[in-house]
Amino acid sequence: MNHPTPFDPRTHAVYSPDKMCKTNIFRSDRMLLGLNAFEPGQEHALHAHADMDKIYHVLEGEGLFLLENDQVSMRAGTTLVAPEGIPHGIRNTGSARLLVLAVLAPAP
Amino acid sequence: MNHPTPFDPRTHAVYSPDKMCKTNIFRSDRMLLGLNAFEPGQEHALHAHADMDKIYHVLEGEGLFLLENDQVSMRAGTTLVAPEGIPHGIRNTGSARLLVLAVLAPAP
Repeated sequence: MNHPTPFDPRTHAVYSPDKMCKTNIFRSDRMLLGLNAFEPGQEHALHAHADMDKIYHVLEGEGLFLLENDQVSMRAGTTLVAPEGIPHGIRNTGSARLLVLAVLAPAP
Repeated sequence: MNHPTPFDPRTHAVYSPDKMCKTNIFRSDRMLLGLNAFEPGQEHALHAHADMDKIYHVLEGEGLFLLENDQVSMRAGTTLVAPEGIPHGIRNTGSARLLVLAVLAPAP
């Protein structure tokens, strides 16, 4: 993609029937902007990153943010910040696709 | 704010009648997540950052992304990546408030 050109990130979504699907939109050493796309029932298990902060912003659908000893409902418009070392994950518990914008800094 | 707790970023918006208003939601050395809030007619003039990448994602309203020798219409759901050194800005040309999520890496 030619940056800077405004775009609708939903047009870059890629889904897989096998497992949740990650798509990169922009990458530098400083940050990675991508999409996490979930068919109904798919999930990204609880995990954590050392020395890397992550932001999730839900674009479409609904589901759960998986946290340490907790699960919190989310839907389009919800944001989550997972600072370095903080466990986080996502599960699509809805009947439609779930699409989440993800920003990691620095890039993995 | 206690991270990680999912939230609706629109609830953190602060507007000013005097000029566009910036609000910080999360800051580390690695990244800054904030909001840029524009009353109708307000703008953030064209500017660029050395050694820092920025992502904009429009949450509410409509307006223009200001680019070098160009202006491109945007609205809720539009994303723009401004890599380091690339001029960018925002103008609210609509009749309603314009709210934009901004991520900078590393934090300014």
